[in-house]
Amino acid sequence: MLDSFHEECGVVGVYGHPEAANLVYLSLYALQHRGQESAGIVSADGQVLLSHRGMGLVADIFKEDIIRRLEGFSAIGHNRYSTSGSTLLKNAQPFCVDYVGGAVALSHNGNLTNYVELRRRLESDGRIFQSGTDSEVILHLIAMSKAERLVDRVVAALGEVQGAYSLVFLSESEMIAARDPYGFRPLVVGRLRGQERPGEGWVVASETCALDLVDAEYLREVEPGEVIEFTAAGMKSYRPFAPHAPTRCVFEYVYFARPDSRVYGRSVYQVRKELGRRLAQSHPVEADIVIPVPDSGVPAAVGYAEQSGLPFEMGLIRNHYVGRTFIEPQDSIRHFGVKVKLNAQREVLEGKRVVVVDDSIVRGTTSRKIVTMVRNAGALEVHMRISSPPTTGPCFYGVDTPTRKELIASSHSIDEIRAFIGADTLGYLSERGLYSFLGEGPRGGFCDACFTGRYPVLVSDDEQPIQLHLFEAKDR
Amino acid sequence: MLDSFHEECGVVGVYGHPEAANLVYLSLYALQHRGQESAGIVSADGQVLLSHRGMGLVADIFKEDIIRRLEGFSAIGHNRYSTSGSTLLKNAQPFCVDYVGGAVALSHNGNLTNYVELRRRLESDGRIFQSGTDSEVILHLIAMSKAERLVDRVVAALGEVQGAYSLVFLSESEMIAARDPYGFRPLVVGRLRGQERPGEGWVVASETCALDLVDAEYLREVEPGEVIEFTAAGMKSYRPFAPHAPTRCVFEYVYFARPDSRVYGRSVYQVRKELGRRLAQSHPVEADIVIPVPDSGVPAAVGYAEQSGLPFEMGLIRNHYVGRTFIEPQDSIRHFGVKVKLNAQREVLEGKRVVVVDDSIVRGTTSRKIVTMVRNAGALEVHMRISSPPTTGPCFYGVDTPTRKELIASSHSIDEIRAFIGADTLGYLSERGLYSFLGEGPRGGFCDACFTGRYPVLVSDDEQPIQLHLFEAKDR
Amino acid sequence: MLDSFHEECGVVGVYGHPEAANLVYLSLYALQHRGQESAGIVSADGQVLLSHRGMGLVADIFKEDIIRRLEGFSAIGHNRYSTSGSTLLKNAQPFCVDYVGGAVALSHNGNLTNYVELRRRLESDGRIFQSGTDSEVILHLIAMSKAERLVDRVVAALGEVQGAYSLVFLSESEMIAARDPYGFRPLVVGRLRGQERPGEGWVVASETCALDLVDAEYLREVEPGEVIEFTAAGMKSYRPFAPHAPTRCVFEYVYFARPDSRVYGRSVYQVRKELGRRLAQSHPVEADIVIPVPDSGVPAAVGYAEQSGLPFEMGLIRNHYVGRTFIEPQDSIRHFGVKVKLNAQREVLEGKRVVVVDDSIVRGTTSRKIVTMVRNAGALEVHMRISSPPTTGPCFYGVDTPTRKELIASSHSIDEIRAFIGADTLGYLSERGLYSFLGEGPRGGFCDACFTGRYPVLVSDDEQPIQLHLFEAKDR
Amino acid sequence: MLDSFHEECGVVGVYGHPEAANLVYLSLYALQHRGQESAGIVSADGQVLLSHRGMGLVADIFKEDIIRRLEGFSAIGHNRYSTSGSTLLKNAQPFCVDYVGGAVALSHNGNLTNYVELRRRLESDGRIFQSGTDSEVILHLIAMSKAERLVDRVVAALGEVQGAYSLVFLSESEMIAARDPYGFRPLVVGRLRGQERPGEGWVVASETCALDLVDAEYLREVEPGEVIEFTAAGMKSYRPFAPHAPTRCVFEYVYFARPDSRVYGRSVYQVRKELGRRLAQSHPVEADIVIPVPDSGVPAAVGYAEQSGLPFEMGLIRNHYVGRTFIEPQDSIRHFGVKVKLNAQREVLEGKRVVVVDDSIVRGTTSRKIVTMVRNAGALEVHMRISSPPTTGPCFYGVDTPTRKELIASSHSIDEIRAFIGADTLGYLSERGLYSFLGEGPRGGFCDACFTGRYPVLVSDDEQPIQLHLFEAKDR
Repeated sequence: MLDSFHEECGVVGVYGHPEAANLVYLSLYALQHRGQESAGIVSADGQVLLSHRGMGLVADIFKEDIIRRLEGFSAIGHNRYSTSGSTLLKNAQPFCVDYVGGAVALSHNGNLTNYVELRRRLESDGRIFQSGTDSEVILHLIAMSKAERLVDRVVAALGEVQGAYSLVFLSESEMIAARDPYGFRPLVVGRLRGQERPGEGWVVASETCALDLVDAEYLREVEPGEVIEFTAAGMKSYRPFAPHAPTRCVFEYVYFARPDSRVYGRSVYQVRKELGRRLAQSHPVEADIVIPVPDSGVPAAVGYAEQSGLPFEMGLIRNHYVGRTFIEPQDSIRHFGVKVKLNAQREVLEGKRVVVVDDSIVRGTTSRKIVTMVRNAGALEVHMRISSPPTTGPCFYGVDTPTRKELIASSHSIDEIRAFIGADTLGYLSERGLYSFLGEGPRGGFCDACFTGRYPVLVSDDEQPIQLHLFEAKDR
Repeated sequence: MLDSFHEECGVVGVYGHPEAANLVYLSLYALQHRGQESAGIVSADGQVLLSHRGMGLVADIFKEDIIRRLEGFSAIGHNRYSTSGSTLLKNAQPFCVDYVGGAVALSHNGNLTNYVELRRRLESDGRIFQSGTDSEVILHLIAMSKAERLVDRVVAALGEVQGAYSLVFLSESEMIAARDPYGFRPLVVGRLRGQERPGEGWVVASETCALDLVDAEYLREVEPGEVIEFTAAGMKSYRPFAPHAPTRCVFEYVYFARPDSRVYGRSVYQVRKELGRRLAQSHPVEADIVIPVPDSGVPAAVGYAEQSGLPFEMGLIRNHYVGRTFIEPQDSIRHFGVKVKLNAQREVLEGKRVVVVDDSIVRGTTSRKIVTMVRNAGALEVHMRISSPPTTGPCFYGVDTPTRKELIASSHSIDEIRAFIGADTLGYLSERGLYSFLGEGPRGGFCDACFTGRYPVLVSDDEQPIQLHLFEAKDR
Repeated sequence: MLDSFHEECGVVGVYGHPEAANLVYLSLYALQHRGQESAGIVSADGQVLLSHRGMGLVADIFKEDIIRRLEGFSAIGHNRYSTSGSTLLKNAQPFCVDYVGGAVALSHNGNLTNYVELRRRLESDGRIFQSGTDSEVILHLIAMSKAERLVDRVVAALGEVQGAYSLVFLSESEMIAARDPYGFRPLVVGRLRGQERPGEGWVVASETCALDLVDAEYLREVEPGEVIEFTAAGMKSYRPFAPHAPTRCVFEYVYFARPDSRVYGRSVYQVRKELGRRLAQSHPVEADIVIPVPDSGVPAAVGYAEQSGLPFEMGLIRNHYVGRTFIEPQDSIRHFGVKVKLNAQREVLEGKRVVVVDDSIVRGTTSRKIVTMVRNAGALEVHMRISSPPTTGPCFYGVDTPTRKELIASSHSIDEIRAFIGADTLGYLSERGLYSFLGEGPRGGFCDACFTGRYPVLVSDDEQPIQLHLFEAKDR
Repeated sequence: MLDSFHEECGVVGVYGHPEAANLVYLSLYALQHRGQESAGIVSADGQVLLSHRGMGLVADIFKEDIIRRLEGFSAIGHNRYSTSGSTLLKNAQPFCVDYVGGAVALSHNGNLTNYVELRRRLESDGRIFQSGTDSEVILHLIAMSKAERLVDRVVAALGEVQGAYSLVFLSESEMIAARDPYGFRPLVVGRLRGQERPGEGWVVASETCALDLVDAEYLREVEPGEVIEFTAAGMKSYRPFAPHAPTRCVFEYVYFARPDSRVYGRSVYQVRKELGRRLAQSHPVEADIVIPVPDSGVPAAVGYAEQSGLPFEMGLIRNHYVGRTFIEPQDSIRHFGVKVKLNAQREVLEGKRVVVVDDSIVRGTTSRKIVTMVRNAGALEVHMRISSPPTTGPCFYGVDTPTRKELIASSHSIDEIRAFIGADTLGYLSERGLYSFLGEGPRGGFCDACFTGRYPVLVSDDEQPIQLHLFEAKDR
């Protein structure tokens, strides 16, 4: 999916290793798909925190001399995808402050639903804000807590926030991981192989692909509502919040997570393949070949092909060198937007009835270009198959989504969408198909608000949003 | 193939379009896989040539203001892969000079086998050199010709050089394409759709994926030994050289070209799939799944799976955000080299007998790491299948290859290689398998010197190489 | 003076002009001598604040596109000299925050003497800090005020701080200037010529050279203890603080200010010339020529020469292209530190008895090198004359000074200093000489703590300094 | 003089020192005033040449790692001022080539008057050019020589060129300095103190200020027509060309050279002071003060003041932080061009009759702004005094000058110029005044073509200039 929902962040933390910052750097590499606009690392050497943040990709921001200066035995990191138009350095994470207890840094994946209310309250109390992120609110609340220990301050702060958060905190000598009681965003804990001392070798990350890269063993999810403290004495779990039925984000399976990650205890690749198989069962079609929209559609297409018995082909080839910007000819009416990334192969497609498998349709404009490309390459029929239900609502839990109005499925029937994108047939995986294997209960323990409009945590619509008055000139 | 032979260049030219430089830029984007270390564009506005060259990727070198300044109706471009240790800006192409006839620029893919001899001769004649590239020799010869027309000067110059060259020249008002009589390196000619006037809309490129992106129609290969002149009067073909049995580089099919390109008149993707099918026929094995080494091994693995009836799976996931450099932890004995790019999926591989399909083995070290990764992820058996014959010799025709000594197949039997990489079985496609469908005659019209040691054009080994005395400090 | 005290900041504000940011930019250009390590501009368009800050010189940080994006009718700016080792972007000013009243930005020249106490108090109250500057404390206090109007919040905040401050604040629609009751640091107000409407054309700046450049008329000093509010209704003055005998920094006259500025109502150049004249009266010497240490010693040397009747010569030539860093040969015992900036002219100095006029001696090491250079160029005698009293104590009011221990005059007699620097004679201007024309009363209304140790506002020495726990990796 | 003639280059060479490149770097620092648009260093380690060139100032182009990589015992360097619109990296020097004899690099200050003819001849001979500089021609001629030794090749090459050249060549093991028989541009030879072995410690530079900085002793000028070879055996002088009456550029005294340099055997500062004295004698005026246009007018103003008995004052203050570009407000009719660099001091000028001393007037526009500034600051009368004769003709010997038409003195009487610049009186130093102390004979051994139109070497006007066909996009 090229026109897609965007994960807003990847988080990672390493506790107890002489090259903590370097391991965090490698982990951010592995989590680059969760955010490409800014990245940062903060390390702790027992006395102070050391930070470096920048705009762009991990590999461009961190050079050897910077990694070397991020001294210490612990470090946390963050990849950020920022919504268009607010690519601000000041919003880059980890967010760090000095406060009465020393220094604390924060990496946050998610979105607080009562941010506006909290920020209003804190502003009324005469507090100042230097970013436009809800993460800053959490640090205020930590500083305001009267508790002594950082973990108690964190618990006190999280007791006041609502919504989605997978968090990693770092102080001069401790690391703390926390996940909201709903478990919206993923978070796992692992351990570097060969580490035996209690205070060494702990790794926390959004996805297991980060653990794999640094050769850490996957231990388990950070549980919804759990707070974990890492100190020289080892790892200690807290359950400060009343239990709640988890509503994990199902879109991690559909699109966000890397296929080689294990999320919520399952292989993402296997889930996607199975989504493809179920899609083939519910939306079979007489065709000659199955092709994915690369790269995210590949596993579902493999599953669809396997189930349907149709041959799997790479009918669309992706140019992996494409950056974010390229320069369009001025006088041309041709759109290069999708073409520069994908090329349709006439030799594969000509004279064929083609099943195109993608993970989702957002605005519909990209799917329309893809269908046109496939047809122009000689396909006789184009059957679009989507390995998730229609996306009808925006996400308020840490995902960058278009407004409801822009989501084609929010206001169009499936047949209208089919007509818009120009496909011969269009089939979406049903909600039932999704849950038939993923979970028990009607929604399987997942948040599927973007498909169903059933939002587990309410965001009051009538409240005025926070009006920021402070911008970086580069951002306007 | 991650440890690979490297294409040394991609070339492109556009004649007769008001945004020629922009179209060349898009074409270089499409040809980025042929060279990532420097790139350049030269445009011609009828009066002068305008150039811009830089180190790095096309998208980083060219910004809108630069493209805007590359005015004119024609332009040529170049992507360069330079051998390690000579990433010099002065060697970046297109190479441009002023001479008695005006100005001329050159994009060159290939390698002259009599470069040393020619340079010696030119130096003895009191001529000076500012680069370490053989391309400069061609420009000297052009300037030395007594012919009036540029095309005649080019023919005179090419009459003196030997070896591999696919060339695009640009003068203030003309563009000329040329390919050596052996046809070592690919070169195609196409035309922008909707262009009717004789002097408008011509495109020359290494591969058809560049034509596709700019919406140009593929016309045909520039034939081995052909020189084509593009002027306001249109395209004119010359055949100045005695005919020769073509020996096109077969490795373009195996690895270099983008799968969506048409090379030597065939779809690269289809050829690779067929290589996979033949490989399955000649080296079948009892196994559970077939996985590619992504991305280059995908088409052959699809073919192998199709032929063998085994399921195709993505058992290795590639991180496409990985740049050229990343920072290794200092105190670690672990190698991150391959891991940072590829991750093996336990859920796919565990308990399985796995066929791993790759396009070639160069030093063997990368294959060894991949086999280890796949085994560590729980595979019961690992059967490596290579969709080309063993690579035993270096290339002298424009490809960056290790020395013969470094090529594992030059000094080890297939079983020794198998043992080294740690696979249960290892099967290479045979030469016969390669030619069974690719061509007629014993070698099918291909150069396969890297497999067979049969070099179509001799390079005298005992001649002393040119000793350069001039270096950029950054390069040492 | 090359080894010098350093002004820590220049501040500027423009209210009511369609190109406010551009005028601020030009003013920062004019004030570049007050700080060269970072600079920033914040503009206000009536709705929001727009900021841009960077490390380095004004001309390098601001390019046309950035200035264009700093839209609005008002803007403030800041040049910062940061003490060695904390060249942090996060400390760059103007400092900006969102708070309950909207947004506010601050440019600060000076230093709060009760910063530690205030920060402790604010931290105890659960407030967070993102910089290591005292300016952040002022913004907290503004946000904490319960007053409605910004000007009242500012007054409330300043009522709690002590020490040195010349401030310019900017909100979405107002600009406020303030100066501490002692008047430590300079601040003037002017008006762009030709502006007649009440809310247009106001300029506030550290020195009048900024007014001159943007063609603004000098109106008057912002008085010690005064707060001035600029709104659409014009300029309004407040005197919220009890009157206090002003103690303006006398070192602005000696060294900091640009000679073409008017500071505290007097021409800096004329004051310096007069200092030179008085120096000649109190420390005459039989000599052949008078030479300045360029550039800061020039006016005093002109005055010395005039008074003494000795010829003025440029015996030391300055290289104005010298940047902050240059690369010393490794194996050399020679020091290039001063030589790279100054060259002594044999033709001028040979066989002469030379009076060298400088503004001050800090560590003495630079003076020593200069005396050596002058002697090596053939001077028969070197008579060092300093146009201010011996500097014996550090400054706590916004100037970067070495510790007391490093100040040679704090622990050495004048004759010991003379011996150390190798001069034949050494004469400092006396305090009496300083005040004989500068002011009435024993100290003339000036702070001369660096000469006399009489600190107008006490800094409690035994209090522990704030221990920062947060650093940028680049800074360590 | 702010609107000035521009020196086109500074050259330097160091032979026989383990940190040759670093010493060249320091020398280029000292010679930065001779060219600020590009700089380069080439070092020789006995085997190869290593180069680094870049756009901008020496301090920005060379960082420690680059200097470290410029290994070797010898090095040459170059500062370039390029005429507006051709700030090309490819024209940056030292210019380096490989040729039959190895490698050779060249730093060139000057301009060949038969460049067009030579380039035409070389192009006709089939030779190619990669720059637009005449220096490339010299390298061609060296490569074409049949001589064995580099020094003989150099002599052969110089035998064919005409015009102005002060040159330093570097090969793998030798350095050669050469100066044209007219001695147009300066060149001196010195030796690092404490060096005794014959092949060590030699320094060649445009001006002695470079020798001073690296602690080298001034030995003598490279004589007009002399070629000096530096090898392990020491320094060896050649006089291959028929003697010629020298015509050294007198403008080096007037403006180009640094005042602390010794040029043509005299102190520049002393010459300028004497020019000021003679100016006072020939153009006395009843006035109150004498002020220079800083910095270049300072020595002449000191001389004028001394001779006239009027007080010397700094009535114009220069902002030394001003870079090449600054951003003008869009809607303003005010010109910031000169104001951003100079500020007139009311306190000094008000009510005074002022003598303003500058070194020359080129277009007159800058002088006009200065006169206006001085008047606006309250001067009652403004008497402009120019310490050289009117500049009426362009230079063809290595100086960047406006066309004859743009030179105000070429077409206006002195009184017309006075009226244009708005001065009360205007006085130029006469030719007689210039030579009264500078030299014997009618023109004292100088080239004063820019004053007199008497060009020592003719440039044929009717010859068509070389039409370049090759440009860098950035340059247009």
